[in-house]
Amino acid sequence: MPNDEFSLINDYFANRSARRSDVVIGIGDDGAVVKPMPEHDIVVVTDTLVEGVHFDKTTPPRAIGHKAVAVNLSDLAAMGAQPSWVSLALTCPNTNQDWWTEFSSGLDEICRYYDCQLIGGDTTKGPLTITVTAHGQLPSGTAISRSGAKPGDWVYVSGSLGDAGLGLQVTQNKVSTTGRHLQHVIEKLHYPTPRVAMGQVLRGVATSCIDVSDGLIADLGHLLNQAQVSAQIDLEKLPLSLALTETLNANEALAMALTAGDDYELCFTLPEEHRGRMETLTSHLKTKPVCIGRIMKGAEAKINMHYEGEPWELPQGYKSFNHFAEEEIVKEGE
Amino acid sequence: MPNDEFSLINDYFANRSARRSDVVIGIGDDGAVVKPMPEHDIVVVTDTLVEGVHFDKTTPPRAIGHKAVAVNLSDLAAMGAQPSWVSLALTCPNTNQDWWTEFSSGLDEICRYYDCQLIGGDTTKGPLTITVTAHGQLPSGTAISRSGAKPGDWVYVSGSLGDAGLGLQVTQNKVSTTGRHLQHVIEKLHYPTPRVAMGQVLRGVATSCIDVSDGLIADLGHLLNQAQVSAQIDLEKLPLSLALTETLNANEALAMALTAGDDYELCFTLPEEHRGRMETLTSHLKTKPVCIGRIMKGAEAKINMHYEGEPWELPQGYKSFNHFAEEEIVKEGE
Repeated sequence: MPNDEFSLINDYFANRSARRSDVVIGIGDDGAVVKPMPEHDIVVVTDTLVEGVHFDKTTPPRAIGHKAVAVNLSDLAAMGAQPSWVSLALTCPNTNQDWWTEFSSGLDEICRYYDCQLIGGDTTKGPLTITVTAHGQLPSGTAISRSGAKPGDWVYVSGSLGDAGLGLQVTQNKVSTTGRHLQHVIEKLHYPTPRVAMGQVLRGVATSCIDVSDGLIADLGHLLNQAQVSAQIDLEKLPLSLALTETLNANEALAMALTAGDDYELCFTLPEEHRGRMETLTSHLKTKPVCIGRIMKGAEAKINMHYEGEPWELPQGYKSFNHFAEEEIVKEGE
Repeated sequence: MPNDEFSLINDYFANRSARRSDVVIGIGDDGAVVKPMPEHDIVVVTDTLVEGVHFDKTTPPRAIGHKAVAVNLSDLAAMGAQPSWVSLALTCPNTNQDWWTEFSSGLDEICRYYDCQLIGGDTTKGPLTITVTAHGQLPSGTAISRSGAKPGDWVYVSGSLGDAGLGLQVTQNKVSTTGRHLQHVIEKLHYPTPRVAMGQVLRGVATSCIDVSDGLIADLGHLLNQAQVSAQIDLEKLPLSLALTETLNANEALAMALTAGDDYELCFTLPEEHRGRMETLTSHLKTKPVCIGRIMKGAEAKINMHYEGEPWELPQGYKSFNHFAEEEIVKEGE
């Protein structure tokens, strides 16, 4: 049956991606069968990318394949898990061989890099929507949740924020930047790097962790909400790239770093007594976490922002990202 | 944040669905954490339902919620696994509270019935697309694959075929049926029953198994292809409902049973020496498997169909289901 659903999966996916010895049955059966490590928990994460929402028609298919996996590995990283297996549900209109080749290459490359294997999925016809479910493993009981922050803990981020948001504005022609920054911000937008190694290092060290997919204010807000604490953030410590600070004015750059999504850095909290251990453990990593503030008492989950000691507020027009915000869900009788 | 993505998930899903003691972290973190049973393998299955392809605007949202889980549990059943955990990726246009209530109720009810827990997922805005990834468990090394059929094995199906296909034609006003059959075929279409108990009984008994989602010819064809064998099917043994045989003529009824999708019965193969064991093990189940033929030598995966000893061919105009069949994928240079 050439050119059909089954040969598409076989042609483009079955013989690619890293091979793991713990995959008993891979692509091509009713389901995949995997053998978990003894004394380990399984972490399961799911993220969907929709054309017109998370990317547009100009996004290279290779980037879509990369990003569909990367955003899930980023969630695994935030839990401290080691990536193991990936499932792909691809809803796709009729499309051409070049698209499938590029998309599957992007997906395959990141799977190989992180030694996780595509074990199965589903291909259906319809508007372009990509859902990846990724599975990771970690020693039983060591998952890092969103809820463990305590007053006095330090707040860290794993790398510079706002670049992907700037990249998005550049692709939408809302902002222009010079050539050397252009490539950097487009790469950050299209080929995010999940902080997989750092996440695993943080097990037993961080008290809570989240990946910054919807902007620092929104995602740090989740940590604070779940732990019923507040935070003070010193904005002058926020790691910002030259691309950001040389393209936007100081206030806009901060606002972008605080509210733009898609950076996929980790934001985590840490008690004073684990700072030395964290610094040792992360010293061999390419990126070094940066301390940006401290957890405070206050169940209202408030983020107090200061810039060099002065209170600072978001400029008008910036807000955090939310798919179903405001009046879009119609509740009857309201 | 009322009415937003996070409260939608919490409002409609977080406090529903069965609670399992092996779920360490459920909905509301970057990922879910589950504790697999020792000495067990994990089975992972993924199926997507797309509006306009797998259901239409007239399909009740409760049925969509049910079916999105049912089709996945059917894949788990075909592997012999016990359902454990479910993830939901829901892409949805703006919609109203009634839709969410009905959809989540349908999903919740089937999860509770089969004691599996919704552990997380993703909600995005876009064209209505529902991807469920379900996880099951089985003792290590006991998964039933598609590839173990041997010449001489008997071929079974777990229940009557063609009813969901008839239901679809009725909803599309292509066929009409009487009141007492109408409800039966619509229920078979909208609320399929995954053969979860039968699948588990077949571990160590069946040599291969698949669920009939794309029609018996297509799905039995997969078993034959993977095992490089052929089959003889005795069509007079095919289990057909009264709804089917009283609505369609004899040839049309057989053709519907052989080619229509969405039945979610199991088709499996079994050596002679396991027949007695299988009959004992399935004697307490509500539906009893029916023997419809036998596996033959022949690597070309041919299905020889006979009706009371006479060769039988599909009437013109019937074909098996395939999303990307024929010229839809454009290969350059062809």
